[in-house]
Amino acid sequence: MANSFGNQLTVTSFGESHGPCIGVVIDGLPSNIFIDKAFIQKALDRRKPGQSSISTQRKESDQFQILSGVFNEHSTGAPIMIIIPNEDAQSKDYEALKNIYRPGHADFVYDKKYGNRDYNGGGRSSARVTAGWVAAGAIAALYLKTVSNIVISAMVSSIYNITLAKPYTQYDWTTAESNAVRCPDATKASEMIALIERMKQDGNSVGGTIACKIENAPIGLGEPLFNKLNAELSKAMLSINAVKGIQFGSGFESTQLLGSENNDTIDNNSNHDGGITAGISNGKTIEFELAFKPTSSISLPQNMLNTSGNSEIMSVPGRHDPCVLPRAIVIVEAMAALVMADQYLLNLRYIK
Amino acid sequence: MANSFGNQLTVTSFGESHGPCIGVVIDGLPSNIFIDKAFIQKALDRRKPGQSSISTQRKESDQFQILSGVFNEHSTGAPIMIIIPNEDAQSKDYEALKNIYRPGHADFVYDKKYGNRDYNGGGRSSARVTAGWVAAGAIAALYLKTVSNIVISAMVSSIYNITLAKPYTQYDWTTAESNAVRCPDATKASEMIALIERMKQDGNSVGGTIACKIENAPIGLGEPLFNKLNAELSKAMLSINAVKGIQFGSGFESTQLLGSENNDTIDNNSNHDGGITAGISNGKTIEFELAFKPTSSISLPQNMLNTSGNSEIMSVPGRHDPCVLPRAIVIVEAMAALVMADQYLLNLRYIK
Amino acid sequence: MANSFGNQLTVTSFGESHGPCIGVVIDGLPSNIFIDKAFIQKALDRRKPGQSSISTQRKESDQFQILSGVFNEHSTGAPIMIIIPNEDAQSKDYEALKNIYRPGHADFVYDKKYGNRDYNGGGRSSARVTAGWVAAGAIAALYLKTVSNIVISAMVSSIYNITLAKPYTQYDWTTAESNAVRCPDATKASEMIALIERMKQDGNSVGGTIACKIENAPIGLGEPLFNKLNAELSKAMLSINAVKGIQFGSGFESTQLLGSENNDTIDNNSNHDGGITAGISNGKTIEFELAFKPTSSISLPQNMLNTSGNSEIMSVPGRHDPCVLPRAIVIVEAMAALVMADQYLLNLRYIK
Amino acid sequence: MANSFGNQLTVTSFGESHGPCIGVVIDGLPSNIFIDKAFIQKALDRRKPGQSSISTQRKESDQFQILSGVFNEHSTGAPIMIIIPNEDAQSKDYEALKNIYRPGHADFVYDKKYGNRDYNGGGRSSARVTAGWVAAGAIAALYLKTVSNIVISAMVSSIYNITLAKPYTQYDWTTAESNAVRCPDATKASEMIALIERMKQDGNSVGGTIACKIENAPIGLGEPLFNKLNAELSKAMLSINAVKGIQFGSGFESTQLLGSENNDTIDNNSNHDGGITAGISNGKTIEFELAFKPTSSISLPQNMLNTSGNSEIMSVPGRHDPCVLPRAIVIVEAMAALVMADQYLLNLRYIK
Repeated sequence: MANSFGNQLTVTSFGESHGPCIGVVIDGLPSNIFIDKAFIQKALDRRKPGQSSISTQRKESDQFQILSGVFNEHSTGAPIMIIIPNEDAQSKDYEALKNIYRPGHADFVYDKKYGNRDYNGGGRSSARVTAGWVAAGAIAALYLKTVSNIVISAMVSSIYNITLAKPYTQYDWTTAESNAVRCPDATKASEMIALIERMKQDGNSVGGTIACKIENAPIGLGEPLFNKLNAELSKAMLSINAVKGIQFGSGFESTQLLGSENNDTIDNNSNHDGGITAGISNGKTIEFELAFKPTSSISLPQNMLNTSGNSEIMSVPGRHDPCVLPRAIVIVEAMAALVMADQYLLNLRYIK
Repeated sequence: MANSFGNQLTVTSFGESHGPCIGVVIDGLPSNIFIDKAFIQKALDRRKPGQSSISTQRKESDQFQILSGVFNEHSTGAPIMIIIPNEDAQSKDYEALKNIYRPGHADFVYDKKYGNRDYNGGGRSSARVTAGWVAAGAIAALYLKTVSNIVISAMVSSIYNITLAKPYTQYDWTTAESNAVRCPDATKASEMIALIERMKQDGNSVGGTIACKIENAPIGLGEPLFNKLNAELSKAMLSINAVKGIQFGSGFESTQLLGSENNDTIDNNSNHDGGITAGISNGKTIEFELAFKPTSSISLPQNMLNTSGNSEIMSVPGRHDPCVLPRAIVIVEAMAALVMADQYLLNLRYIK
Repeated sequence: MANSFGNQLTVTSFGESHGPCIGVVIDGLPSNIFIDKAFIQKALDRRKPGQSSISTQRKESDQFQILSGVFNEHSTGAPIMIIIPNEDAQSKDYEALKNIYRPGHADFVYDKKYGNRDYNGGGRSSARVTAGWVAAGAIAALYLKTVSNIVISAMVSSIYNITLAKPYTQYDWTTAESNAVRCPDATKASEMIALIERMKQDGNSVGGTIACKIENAPIGLGEPLFNKLNAELSKAMLSINAVKGIQFGSGFESTQLLGSENNDTIDNNSNHDGGITAGISNGKTIEFELAFKPTSSISLPQNMLNTSGNSEIMSVPGRHDPCVLPRAIVIVEAMAALVMADQYLLNLRYIK
Repeated sequence: MANSFGNQLTVTSFGESHGPCIGVVIDGLPSNIFIDKAFIQKALDRRKPGQSSISTQRKESDQFQILSGVFNEHSTGAPIMIIIPNEDAQSKDYEALKNIYRPGHADFVYDKKYGNRDYNGGGRSSARVTAGWVAAGAIAALYLKTVSNIVISAMVSSIYNITLAKPYTQYDWTTAESNAVRCPDATKASEMIALIERMKQDGNSVGGTIACKIENAPIGLGEPLFNKLNAELSKAMLSINAVKGIQFGSGFESTQLLGSENNDTIDNNSNHDGGITAGISNGKTIEFELAFKPTSSISLPQNMLNTSGNSEIMSVPGRHDPCVLPRAIVIVEAMAALVMADQYLLNLRYIK
């Protein structure tokens, strides 16, 4: 079930970038959860292309349709199927890619693995499919709102060499949404936007880091040994296109601390462990950071291998984000919500 | 199945640190694989405690027993059950911990989650259980040897502030095994060993980074969207005690590169992606690095919460590694082998 | 994942009887399988309502749409999503059922379990959802055709008290399709059709038995101990609405034989075991028989419990099959194909 | 995970008939469940060989050992591993079977499927492995006792042509345990015992039927569409060696009733559906019946295929039950308990 994610609450993804639609089936959602369509649409709107000068100009309204599992605006316990039509696929852009493999893209490995590759718009490997994940994540968030006080938020903590002035934990994250790059440091945000616009003009791209925090998680979420909360979050996040790394709490920096410095006591404010101990939420805020590589699709000419085994110099056609992070924020939140809802359900058995 | 890992080849872990034994059941291994006991024992010997001056002095011979699934020295297709007896449990050390929660340890969260906590030697949360994973990983490696040329190796790339002089990819990894800390840079290894010995004397601890590479993986391993090779490796690695982060290829450093710099072309030598594109092995060496926090168990007095909700100043009793990385190398290799064997089996369907 | 079936090849079902559509996502199908749309449509046509005088008069064209996973008429390895629109839902028939529980129906248990019940047309519990299974089963059959000689067929072996003149194994099953009831004994078929037509007039219903055989299965399909071929087939068949029993080979009759009579020798013609020994296909034809209870929905007045806890005498409104077996044939074949394709994939690891 | 059963509560089986032990790992059991060892041993004693004149004379004390997951006599939430040593394996009996395939046995299909067959005592295919299932089922029953009033019981309802005088539902099942064949009709029980003893003398065998009922199940257990309660019970039961059929409630007899006769009203006493409607427990007693074929191992000379492809006339060596049903009662109860506990856990999400 390579296209399903989750243990108790599962999302099954389907669809291709230039097919009629992409979508998901959400299974395992308890009945009687209010399915707030405006809430779901808002999440999709935050991810959709063309929302600002620094995102791809592909135009998709991303109006979703729920085709099953909801009755009287509430879940019935049956699978919820959601489709999001593809409205602005321009497949002619991709004819040139039929016989060529873009660097850093799925083209080569999909061809070698599957043989029958849908090259239009990246087909199945396109980040367009994550729109479905966002819809599913919104539904997971609606469940979490019903049963808990868990709040999930993500924000951009660096773009290329533009980093925050303070540790990401010290910002007011609610301000991130006020700018196109979704960074809570207004000054840095302006610099980031300017950089991304320059990349767009240059036909180049940049990556960066996204920080995510999960507040008010009850103590006890996570199922050792192999469904630990950090392990499941890692799997979820590394499923997102362009993510190349994850670190919890102090992460790689904790390797530069002594045990006596790094140990969090249960009742103080330190949070080197990022809210998860031994794979289980410990009552502090869950915090992790993700590395996104720069977008592979750039219009600068590059050396590419073709299906005949030769190299060609060419540009990647199509419309692409010069930096995926501002939109990826929403995908990170969605995957985190799916994990937390799943873990919440797994943990129910222990509640007396 | 929180204690099972894998899709097609699964390992189910059981046992506690101070119980009669720890062990695993390996299911899904094809029949007719030679089960080389010396090979398995060698892996266990590399992980076992007490092997050098810088590891815990708990003495375990870690002689494993195969109790099912093997006939005429080959797998039968039935589950292979392996136990490793606990020989040197000293539970009296732990009476003091019955009512107290060690910082950075499972004690607190296990108590809150499960209620009935086996505090002896850390019980289920102890890294002792990873001996079983190592045995399972050795069997996965035997399978990989039978069907492929895949070779997996790990080494220490930093301890505290002692880092390699060159990128980890530029070393001869085979030399790592020649010193107690398992670092291929002999000079740095000496410094690391000296540091760890000092920590031991100080009653303190250090962490560091481990690099892992997987050579000769065929193109095409990894099952998008949700069993991507990097996602499965991340889940596997974040299941290991003390791991707080993972990065593939250039990882967090790739966020500081332009798209034009970071894109690997298929036929050149760059490997920013760490051998995995779009969740699938691309034919280059798979490379990732892990952050291990410093050992939580230190004998320096610390502030600890007790079960009555008050704080006490005390030392962690018991015998512990001042630095887990030299032994964790073997656990990393084992989990990587389990993932690769699993993915190899998942990929069989595509082979014509 | 209560709405997914299968291990390696999975079908995820969604949709309700009176929603916009029902459908499935098929995951795990290897790439490069020819997706013969006419073949799939033919299976759907054999199941669709209104095809004869003895089936429900609900009119559905059951024209399916493939919305993902197929490129150049072949599978890509990505999930195949199929929807079948609901065209003739008449929900007004069901207003009367909002507050009442039909005997033998899901109404009562769905209300108690889920709380939020979609009563229109039976909602999720309607056999209409099996149209999706039939489409998925046709795709599984296309896979089996590509890789094996396996042939699956089912036929009606009894309706009410009208039973075959000979054991079901002794008929030419290809003739079953030539009559509306899908029974290979032409005389009995006529009697059955007459009986079902009388039931329709009477507002009553009948059940019966369906026999299924799977020819040319290679020796070795089935994964003991808990994915045995007969266990998986049983789970599949008991998932079908109205099925109340299954027996393999001589089944309940084998309890009336001595061991010396019942044992099949490997090289003779007896097949008391129905082609499966120890959970694994043994090279003989796989044979099993299913008991279908009479349709619960009858228009004769019945005593029904209402949501206030009182009884009412009333008729079941809506359009229903007086006997589901002629159409259920196709569902049985579909579920059998899904199991066989799944088991074929699970067995690949053993092929040298 | 072919050797694991269950969704939320899983049992992983390992071991061979003539290996050092057989056993199970039980995962997913909530913490704080009292693990009553006497209760588990009693279940094992009821299944163990050599308990009466009509069972095999292999002598096994079936004293189990719990090696993990229990602390202070209660579950900790960690996996419970149980082994049961094999004490009376007489492998020399089986040398003769190295190159021959017993009719009705796993020998032939295991050899063809796996290649490396452990022929001693039937190896993995032996019903001896079900001792582990019984231990696991006892733990599931302890969970059910803690959280519900569910009571599971099974009894012999026929042996060969000796059938009950009344429908099985009309007996006092508690009396079944008072005789060696575990049939509540004392007169019939005596006849059955006499018949089985005659079979033993004749070197022949008989099968029969077992009835099982599950009382006090709450309304709402079962997860449509593909984890329906009847589907999961069917899978569980068809996993038991020698089971060839299952029917719920009126089962095959319901095919001989009109809809108006067969429909159970919710508030009356009829139970044609056997307590399960639309895959969900409906509040009535769950009832089903199983067909067991006669034991394949008989000492009468039979025609057997050997590994060279030729036939030989020979007797099956070793010690065998002339009729497995009296001991299989306990296995049926165990598998039913595992299903019910699993479904209970799956259903928790819906409880407000």
